Amino acid sequence: MIATLTELTECIAPQLAAVQKRFDTVLQSDLPCVTALVKHVARFRGKMLRPTLLLLSGRATGQLSDAHITLGTVLELVHMATLVHDDVLDEAELRRKGATINHLRGNEAAVLLGDYLVSHSYHLCSSLDSQFASLTIARTTNQVCEGELLQLQNRNNFDLDEKTYVQIIERKTAALCAVCCELGAHYAGASADVVAQMRRYGMALGTAFQIQDDILDIVGDANTVGKTLGTDVEKGKMTLPMIHFLRTAPREHRKLLRSLLASREADKAERIRNLILPSGSVQFAHDYAAQIVARARAALATLPQTDARHTLDTMAEFVITRPM
Amino acid sequence: MIATLTELTECIAPQLAAVQKRFDTVLQSDLPCVTALVKHVARFRGKMLRPTLLLLSGRATGQLSDAHITLGTVLELVHMATLVHDDVLDEAELRRKGATINHLRGNEAAVLLGDYLVSHSYHLCSSLDSQFASLTIARTTNQVCEGELLQLQNRNNFDLDEKTYVQIIERKTAALCAVCCELGAHYAGASADVVAQMRRYGMALGTAFQIQDDILDIVGDANTVGKTLGTDVEKGKMTLPMIHFLRTAPREHRKLLRSLLASREADKAERIRNLILPSGSVQFAHDYAAQIVARARAALATLPQTDARHTLDTMAEFVITRPM
Repeated sequence: MIATLTELTECIAPQLAAVQKRFDTVLQSDLPCVTALVKHVARFRGKMLRPTLLLLSGRATGQLSDAHITLGTVLELVHMATLVHDDVLDEAELRRKGATINHLRGNEAAVLLGDYLVSHSYHLCSSLDSQFASLTIARTTNQVCEGELLQLQNRNNFDLDEKTYVQIIERKTAALCAVCCELGAHYAGASADVVAQMRRYGMALGTAFQIQDDILDIVGDANTVGKTLGTDVEKGKMTLPMIHFLRTAPREHRKLLRSLLASREADKAERIRNLILPSGSVQFAHDYAAQIVARARAALATLPQTDARHTLDTMAEFVITRPM
Repeated sequence: MIATLTELTECIAPQLAAVQKRFDTVLQSDLPCVTALVKHVARFRGKMLRPTLLLLSGRATGQLSDAHITLGTVLELVHMATLVHDDVLDEAELRRKGATINHLRGNEAAVLLGDYLVSHSYHLCSSLDSQFASLTIARTTNQVCEGELLQLQNRNNFDLDEKTYVQIIERKTAALCAVCCELGAHYAGASADVVAQMRRYGMALGTAFQIQDDILDIVGDANTVGKTLGTDVEKGKMTLPMIHFLRTAPREHRKLLRSLLASREADKAERIRNLILPSGSVQFAHDYAAQIVARARAALATLPQTDARHTLDTMAEFVITRPM
């Protein structure tokens, strides 16, 4: 995706570079130990999906300004903070995953580093000349936290229903994408209707993105996807293919999935993959995501034909076609 | 202190009650699981020191307004978040302190709950009609995070010097007290000079408060102080009495303290107490705090004689005279 994105995002390349630069500047500290820890964040830096969405949404609906650079940086800081805090593990997982957490020098450092990123994001956001973005982003981070709390509450709840699953991913993932697109358009001077459209695009894109991520976690190839898979199963997180499987598969298969989910066997992720793959549940989740992507693309329909619109359209498509 | 404070804070009693109410309202969610977790926060609710400082500073320098209620709530939310995140422990401590962390249903819940409180504090703060408070508070939370990171970096650094110790406590504790007093005066319509004076008062009060807290952690009586003591020693946090002791005590005593600090003996806190108590190091730290308290009280000198000023003055004195 990175190579593709670089070509596709040529129309916002200078602004994207400016966000990267602002990001590094913002996190500078007079304390060497803080600077050293902040460098750990670099290893998470990747696709810059959120600033990209914000800048493209601005470009597709009006004029980009310095506020877009600021907001792109703010939203990337927020996203980084959620990644860092996601690395904080519980006792049971500490035992199993010592290596990961040691990378970040322990839970306490991870918590403080995440807090530092959040604080700097709000600080940077408060430098804009109105409260509008601060209020909008803080409302969104409220939702992100709620989504994460709802997910945590439903860990190992094998009876999780589709409705609650969607509620979780809309809040924990899609809300932040939605606010990127919304603010991108708002600060580009778009009309309220267009801003609302872009928000719908971002919400749909983020939802489909998370469903696809969840599919890949079960059936993807770790080398192709580029990260450790099977973590949802490890963490007792129910996702759409599993929810569908437990509703539709033959009784014996459902029983087997439940017992695998509850087990502590080392190869449980592999066995769950082999159980679910032949069923129609992965296809169901894929079709579900495809419908949402269609909604995302439809939200772009009235925009003028620009490179930025084309890229937003391509990104929506790519969300569900990226390599498994 | 609670009983004393109730009498002393009569002049801000309605506003303090309004902060409590706003606090509860702000944290309401449509998700029952979030509401349930937020209730855990209640067990931390205590002295409301930060809203008290903010309201008294406003009352002592001008007129209280609804902005004071908002800001008192914002700063209590920030403080609560730091307490919740302080509960996140590393593996080593999990083994020793399982009970504490289980109270909060694990590290991940503690992280998310803290994030939820921070997010709501910024959201509430963004409802004010200018960015001033948001910017000022976010700048302060940057400092709080830096202080915490600096402290973490110096864990088990038995060579920590006084200068770095003061840097840590000024950022992690005093900065938040300073901003309470500063914003209290600012939003009461005080002049820039008076606002700066109140900031100095808060900074000094917070610094002395933390030094006294650190003294009590070594020599206090758990029942009188009302919390578990000896935690600094457990966490490898060097504080002023120990720093002074390692600079001034006879060579053999210094050697003994170092070996006790590095040891894993169950009674190390008790033995360190018995080693340091007869020395002049506790008195040194106490005198140090007393000088800072004198600075705090001096900062109030030009204020009109009101109940609020009297209470601020008494609070400064109480910081170093509270029962051991």
